[in-house]
Amino acid sequence: MTRPQPAPQWPLGARLDDREAMFVAVELSRAVAGRTSPNPAVGALVFDSDGRVCGAGATAPPGGPHAEAAALAQAGARARGGTAVVTLEPCDHTGRTGPCSRALIEAGIARVVFAIADPTAQASGGAETLRRAGVEVVGGVSAADVEAGPLRPWLHRQRTGRAEVTLKIATTIDGRVAAPDGTSRWITGETARAEVHERRARVDAILVGTGTVLADDPALTARNPDGSLRAHQPLRVVVGDRPVPAGSRILDSAARTLVIPGHDPASVIERLSADCCDVQVEGGPRLAGAFLAADLVDRVEQYLAPPALLGDGQLAVAGGGALSIGDALRLRRTAVRALGDDLLLTYDRVTGQ
Amino acid sequence: MTRPQPAPQWPLGARLDDREAMFVAVELSRAVAGRTSPNPAVGALVFDSDGRVCGAGATAPPGGPHAEAAALAQAGARARGGTAVVTLEPCDHTGRTGPCSRALIEAGIARVVFAIADPTAQASGGAETLRRAGVEVVGGVSAADVEAGPLRPWLHRQRTGRAEVTLKIATTIDGRVAAPDGTSRWITGETARAEVHERRARVDAILVGTGTVLADDPALTARNPDGSLRAHQPLRVVVGDRPVPAGSRILDSAARTLVIPGHDPASVIERLSADCCDVQVEGGPRLAGAFLAADLVDRVEQYLAPPALLGDGQLAVAGGGALSIGDALRLRRTAVRALGDDLLLTYDRVTGQ
Ligand SMILES: NC(=O)c1ccc[n+]([C@@H]2O[C@H](COP(=O)([O-])OP(=O)(O)OC[C@H]3O[C@@H](n4cnc5c(N)ncnc54)[C@H](OP(=O)(O)O)[C@@H]3O)[C@@H](O)[C@H]2O)c1
Ligand SMILES: NC(=O)c1ccc[n+]([C@@H]2O[C@H](COP(=O)([O-])OP(=O)(O)OC[C@H]3O[C@@H](n4cnc5c(N)ncnc54)[C@H](OP(=O)(O)O)[C@@H]3O)[C@@H](O)[C@H]2O)c1
Repeated sequence: MTRPQPAPQWPLGARLDDREAMFVAVELSRAVAGRTSPNPAVGALVFDSDGRVCGAGATAPPGGPHAEAAALAQAGARARGGTAVVTLEPCDHTGRTGPCSRALIEAGIARVVFAIADPTAQASGGAETLRRAGVEVVGGVSAADVEAGPLRPWLHRQRTGRAEVTLKIATTIDGRVAAPDGTSRWITGETARAEVHERRARVDAILVGTGTVLADDPALTARNPDGSLRAHQPLRVVVGDRPVPAGSRILDSAARTLVIPGHDPASVIERLSADCCDVQVEGGPRLAGAFLAADLVDRVEQYLAPPALLGDGQLAVAGGGALSIGDALRLRRTAVRALGDDLLLTYDRVTGQ
Repeated sequence: MTRPQPAPQWPLGARLDDREAMFVAVELSRAVAGRTSPNPAVGALVFDSDGRVCGAGATAPPGGPHAEAAALAQAGARARGGTAVVTLEPCDHTGRTGPCSRALIEAGIARVVFAIADPTAQASGGAETLRRAGVEVVGGVSAADVEAGPLRPWLHRQRTGRAEVTLKIATTIDGRVAAPDGTSRWITGETARAEVHERRARVDAILVGTGTVLADDPALTARNPDGSLRAHQPLRVVVGDRPVPAGSRILDSAARTLVIPGHDPASVIERLSADCCDVQVEGGPRLAGAFLAADLVDRVEQYLAPPALLGDGQLAVAGGGALSIGDALRLRRTAVRALGDDLLLTYDRVTGQ
């Protein structure tokens, strides 16, 4: 399913300061976001002893090399005496690949800069191992920017034990997803729809209730504007007891599909968290409400439609369980993007509630 | 109720081209917006024969001087041989004040620049009168910008015969205005609430249904952050059959209040259009839905709350009558403003639907 991506052309030979290098490392990791789970999407740059970029890399799909190994492979002997800039603290354990701390030491790297300390018990200690080998180690560079980037879902899973859940809703400005007669297709415009597919190509799993499957028969694949399938397809998950009719598009061979009977959002997420870091709930209203009531929504992506006002019809979220304003899920707006006539609003849960 | 406003300090002596002058004239009119109905909020600048600003003015409340007269009064003899730049075509009829066309000719103005032709049958002809008196007349300068400015509600009323209706909604991101237990106060933050009062100080009338009066007992006045009343108070209008309880805050002496029994949005607007150009429907859901169903919504101002997700509770707009997506009121987004944690989204009705 995962076709090889073209290698990004990074400015080999360029001199960058630590923050600039970290910015490039984040961009490198963006290109692989959604294809590395359950491993983190990490980016790395290697500089020679003269301070010039000589290697760049990002995490390969599970079983393939980590970002540091990929960047070191490109750098070869030029890494000796140089600097490695990595979005995450290099790992220290031997899994399917050897520890990155060891690879950096063996390549003769003199200085390692990273943004985020590895919160994994079994993998952490990379910085310590490097320091003991005489490598200069600098942590915390551009940490806030990196936290908000492609590492975010993985960090969330490491810290909480469960995948990060994004609730995606596409609504009219009065919060409706469908008119009383059920018409809902093309609430949003073309640019917004393209963005939905862009995003699907980056998540590990997409969830809907049986109601959406029975009403809309969606394919839930990530497609290009010409309708062709994208390189990465998320796992399609249907939640609910009613059987999914044979011949439903969601059961086609374009991607894997998991049907989870029952009505318990927590057990659904627990099950998915074994392999997934980034899970998107795409509806409908009852499944969205159930995740909200179970307090399992970490982020919201709202497509505010072309703008239209319906004044009637089905709601985006129903049965969310808040009885009082004080019970509402409080969110912090992180981005506002115009997508043609639509707006894409992104929110993070306010922590500490 | 209308305290005099401090005279704006415009750059007397400055040289401006026609478009720059029109921009200043629009700003002058902005300061009086909402205080001139049923007259238009017009701004005017007068330049001497050397092309330097020598007078500035805006429409006074009904009975007071028009913008041109105010600017000419400030210019005095310096207007002779000069240019007048006015947002609206100078009027040609004698109402409570004399015709502006005549005043400009008598002041010896050689050139008149305006943005919008006067659509009023009884008042138009000002440009023609000026031309016949040998004055050079240029119309249509910055017309689109001026149309979107403080003249908009008045132009709407002149063209359609009815006041422009803005639907104001303050919602959570899932389109709710109140939680199931009825709690709704402070859905939005402080900055957004200040903007609501700023806006109230500019409209001619605010409408609510009896349901909102009975549930929330709102004052519906325009207040300063310290709670004191602002110079301009809109007419407060309550629509519905249930009696407004004596002692309701909406009946206090802070502003005028009109109670209109019945359920017909069209007759409400017809009645208000005699004196009002700019009418704001502030809810609740049933009155908002009734205006939507009656196809009487020209603009929407949406405050998207700090952002919160309720997943339950009362909707912003209910019973709007759209049965199918094709029936939705299509809107064009005209502005997105961040107000603290909230967003203010402004939409205009897409014409021709
Ligand atoms: N514009 C959009 O963004 C968008 C997205 C998706 C859907 N929609 C619209 O939403 C409508 C479908 O609404 P819907 O609410 O029926 O869809 P839904 O939420 O996808 O499905 C509801 C079903 O989910 C199952 N479910 C699993 N866990 C649940 C829980 N904890 N609580 C309740 N149900 C749970 C139940 O299935 P069982 O009864 O089988 O057990 C339930 O009947 C369609 O009209 C569709 O067009 C719009
Ligand atoms: N966050 C916000 O922006 C906001 C703003 C306002 C209100 N609210 C909330 O809204 C709730 C009140 O809801 P509501 O729907 O009862 O308020 P409403 O729309 O203000 O009042 C409903 C009443 O309006 C009258 N009415 C007039 N014309 C009507 C028509 N064509 N169709 C139906 N009714 C018409 C009826 O009064 P009679 O029955 O007396 O004839 C009806 O009962 C409160 O909880 C309040 O907090 C929130």
